[in-house]
Amino acid sequence: MNNEIRKNRMTDATITVLKADNTPLANQELVIEQIEHKFLFGTAAFDLVPFTNGGYEGEKQEQARQRADKLLALFNAVTLPFYWARFEPQRGNPMTVQLKNAAKWCVEHHLPVKGHPLCWHTLTADWLLSMSNAEILQAQTARIQREVSNFRGLIDMWDVINEAVIMPIFDKYDNGITRLCKEMGRINTIKAMFEATRAENPSAILLLNDFDISPAYDILVEGCLEAGIKIDVIGIQSHMHQGYWGVEKTLEVLDHFSRFNLPIHFTETTLLSGQLMPPEIVDLNDYQVEEWPTTPEGEDRQAREAIQHYTTLFAHPLVEGITWWDMSDGGWLHAPAGLLRKDGSSKPAYDELLNLVKRECWISPTRFVTGENGKVQFNGFPGEYELTCAGKRGTFSLTKESASAIEVHL
Amino acid sequence: MNNEIRKNRMTDATITVLKADNTPLANQELVIEQIEHKFLFGTAAFDLVPFTNGGYEGEKQEQARQRADKLLALFNAVTLPFYWARFEPQRGNPMTVQLKNAAKWCVEHHLPVKGHPLCWHTLTADWLLSMSNAEILQAQTARIQREVSNFRGLIDMWDVINEAVIMPIFDKYDNGITRLCKEMGRINTIKAMFEATRAENPSAILLLNDFDISPAYDILVEGCLEAGIKIDVIGIQSHMHQGYWGVEKTLEVLDHFSRFNLPIHFTETTLLSGQLMPPEIVDLNDYQVEEWPTTPEGEDRQAREAIQHYTTLFAHPLVEGITWWDMSDGGWLHAPAGLLRKDGSSKPAYDELLNLVKRECWISPTRFVTGENGKVQFNGFPGEYELTCAGKRGTFSLTKESASAIEVHL
Repeated sequence: MNNEIRKNRMTDATITVLKADNTPLANQELVIEQIEHKFLFGTAAFDLVPFTNGGYEGEKQEQARQRADKLLALFNAVTLPFYWARFEPQRGNPMTVQLKNAAKWCVEHHLPVKGHPLCWHTLTADWLLSMSNAEILQAQTARIQREVSNFRGLIDMWDVINEAVIMPIFDKYDNGITRLCKEMGRINTIKAMFEATRAENPSAILLLNDFDISPAYDILVEGCLEAGIKIDVIGIQSHMHQGYWGVEKTLEVLDHFSRFNLPIHFTETTLLSGQLMPPEIVDLNDYQVEEWPTTPEGEDRQAREAIQHYTTLFAHPLVEGITWWDMSDGGWLHAPAGLLRKDGSSKPAYDELLNLVKRECWISPTRFVTGENGKVQFNGFPGEYELTCAGKRGTFSLTKESASAIEVHL
Repeated sequence: MNNEIRKNRMTDATITVLKADNTPLANQELVIEQIEHKFLFGTAAFDLVPFTNGGYEGEKQEQARQRADKLLALFNAVTLPFYWARFEPQRGNPMTVQLKNAAKWCVEHHLPVKGHPLCWHTLTADWLLSMSNAEILQAQTARIQREVSNFRGLIDMWDVINEAVIMPIFDKYDNGITRLCKEMGRINTIKAMFEATRAENPSAILLLNDFDISPAYDILVEGCLEAGIKIDVIGIQSHMHQGYWGVEKTLEVLDHFSRFNLPIHFTETTLLSGQLMPPEIVDLNDYQVEEWPTTPEGEDRQAREAIQHYTTLFAHPLVEGITWWDMSDGGWLHAPAGLLRKDGSSKPAYDELLNLVKRECWISPTRFVTGENGKVQFNGFPGEYELTCAGKRGTFSLTKESASAIEVHL
């Protein structure tokens, strides 16, 4: 456990254990175990959509079930896909039912879900192209209203806007959202989308998300905040297909975005277990290969870098979530970015992250003995805890604020 | 004359010439000549400070006088230096008198002056380092109030903030302005400086100026405008020590900044007549050479590129000024960036720019004949004109708005 993690992430608490008659449970041995973590260890898990909708058969379904088990063993949060082009390929025919099935499965398994994304120029609906900008704005807003309203209670966290820095100057192909953003400007587009989302689900956690880590993005965040847009979380992608950033660059990025004193999520974290993408590629989408194998050396490197990256981020007081992208090999760009190989077997990075998350960054069942006054001195990570003593069971929430006033009734 | 210049820069006008008795001057030959241009063909001319303050002697003063003559022949605007470190090396001892002498000389020679810059992290006063951030803000604000107030009427155009994109993350050396901007944020720093400037000279033209042409800068402009900061002109540097941008990149930059529909000045235009700086240099200040000669091939290239760059910019409807940086060789970085060689002789770029500005982009004395109604159809560049007919003389202003309602009384 490094000192930064202890200082920035853990909380001291005095827990008073009380019996049914409200008197202190004195001099008793008990066990405290963390059952939920406030920090979001998440993953993109797009295959949960076919998995929960009869999209696989026979062996494929069994493999998907095994992947789901491995997901549940390691992660406590999930990102589900809402790319408009795929979610509603024909206007009026959205995949609401399928996504609801996937989201319900997540909620039943205590996995908070983030929807990704509500507004993005890439993979937006191509049927926007025949519209005027006023109609595009109306359709985009209505789309947000529909999804956010339909999924309220199932999905209360959204990447509202994806990649706004490049949005109005994206020039790979014509699309409705770039047209709209070029006319409205980035800040007004963001404002409109945030307001539409907020109106449908006032308590949802709303993210601005970008791959750009240059001053352009932190200036955009500043501009949005000065314009009165309430951003709940700053989302930073880190698709490291061209190599791990390293600690120094990661800390520098954190430093630039920390000045807003807002929570930060690392929303799309990619580390490869195979050959790296050549450095001269600017748009990662330009790198098209048929086969991109995982290799033993690559898997060792990936495991090392994953631990380093997660440890660096987990130690920073403003980071509240890290999402791995993707869970399995063969997703975006066919990259060997998974924690699982194509055959479903775990790579070293999976095993080592499991150890890091569930042992180093998680309070395993631990014995304590109460004092005369029924008190226990505790130090742990914010989250939900179970306390058991002689077959009796209580729970408590640990937050930074609750630290000195926790009472558990058995 | 290219079509874009004709379309975007020139104005049709019907001029009615009237005699003293207010009747039309019919069927008379007359000559119209442009005497001032609304477009600012400017140059940095820091040596006007020693020139107007007895800083040169003998031959040096004569050379400075010749440079000043060449300046007056080509340019109609000047940028004078207000780098805080040099303007007030000892607190309380500003070079107000010297700069006033230089500014007065400019105004006497019909050259509007821009002061550069009021707030910048580079070349800021080093005595800020012993202050708290609150004291730095107070000193910087007081500095703005003093200069803007002292020079009102002499200098009514200011680069208020220089290089705000990099300001809070500048890490070459500690300085008071970076500290301040890191704490306040870019937008709030800009807001404070613009407000201080505006309060002292409400009708002054205030620029935000930056070398950054990435989305970071146009997002910053958007953030400032959304935050209610009134920017009069967007200033774009173009120090092309590493090579001419070319037309395509120039048009792309113009495209990104045009969406604000604000006037644009190219505030610091450098094209070399010698070897280019290697492309791997990121901060131009890192390139330190003792000798950087001008060469015959370099001078030919510089002339070609200067004409291309000025023509591209002059054709764009939002560009309202271009400032050459520097007038003579051996200025910043010792670069062969001048239009004049160190011995004061003109390079081809000077002669060709003189031809472009005073012939192509300027209405030379031209003969017209009035009709029965005393009218003349005219097409010219916004600015001031002189009309002479049989020894009599009148003047008129051509603006986009005045075009159809110009009357000249002889």
